[in-house]
Amino acid sequence: MADYIIRPAVKDDCEEILRLIQELAEFEKLPEQVKMTAETLRRDGFGDQKFFTCLVVEAKGNTGEGGQATLWGYALYYFAYSTWEGRVMYLEDLYISPAQRGKGIGTKLFNAVIKIGVDLDCQRMQWVVLSWNQRSIDFYKARGAFDVTSKENWNIFRMDRPVLEQLCKT
Amino acid sequence: MADYIIRPAVKDDCEEILRLIQELAEFEKLPEQVKMTAETLRRDGFGDQKFFTCLVVEAKGNTGEGGQATLWGYALYYFAYSTWEGRVMYLEDLYISPAQRGKGIGTKLFNAVIKIGVDLDCQRMQWVVLSWNQRSIDFYKARGAFDVTSKENWNIFRMDRPVLEQLCKT
Repeated sequence: MADYIIRPAVKDDCEEILRLIQELAEFEKLPEQVKMTAETLRRDGFGDQKFFTCLVVEAKGNTGEGGQATLWGYALYYFAYSTWEGRVMYLEDLYISPAQRGKGIGTKLFNAVIKIGVDLDCQRMQWVVLSWNQRSIDFYKARGAFDVTSKENWNIFRMDRPVLEQLCKT
Repeated sequence: MADYIIRPAVKDDCEEILRLIQELAEFEKLPEQVKMTAETLRRDGFGDQKFFTCLVVEAKGNTGEGGQATLWGYALYYFAYSTWEGRVMYLEDLYISPAQRGKGIGTKLFNAVIKIGVDLDCQRMQWVVLSWNQRSIDFYKARGAFDVTSKENWNIFRMDRPVLEQLCKT
């Protein structure tokens, strides 16, 4: 029997989710870019307007001092939209703690997200990968994903908040 | 006085929005990729669960036979989420019909979207551009945007629905 369960995140998971977000950013060699707080996660994922949805991997029988669950991984997603095809499941993060890898948990979590998207009539799933992260690229390509940036020349553009605020004044 | 107004789209705009979506796809040289219908736009933008929001540019005093507005452009967006920074305004499409360009309408529409994002505490705005579309790249860079794919090696990955359905069966 598995020593973990995959379930929708609850508000009390936000401290643990934040810990995993930070672990992932360290792996991606960009830890200084994490401005997130548990409070913001609670506001945006569990408030009146939901900006994301999250599935978590909870370790069985391993609760913290305050009774909160210990998490081994998470998948955070939201719904994007393609004007060519319709609903798109957008997978922002999929992460399993290093100590828990190699047991197929990532695959189970990935498939759980896909099932939610298929049930909601999503026409595709999308996400981004750092071009040097070969382990992830292999994982995704083995499952039938392809690199849209390479294949179709789509590049991601971005404006940060100070620029946006400046433009609002013009 | 301007001969157009920028306003939130209503359900009855969907036929016109679809016409503009098709124009844009032809410009992007990928018209065969448009599977969208006006019915799907109505369901996903104006139903119980909203998958996108749309602003439109309506030509003043120029209604069709059924009384519906004639549109010169549209901006379609939704809210994405960054686990590092929080709320993200995602601009799926920004389009102005060729005959109406050069009058600053695109800039006004772009700024209207930004203002909505800033008011909702979005930390950044993101979108994709075809790497050969220099006119758009110049427009965005002149306003302070940068190319995340080039700068930080983020590549977009995607799985299409047949692959997703297959994975659900495993």
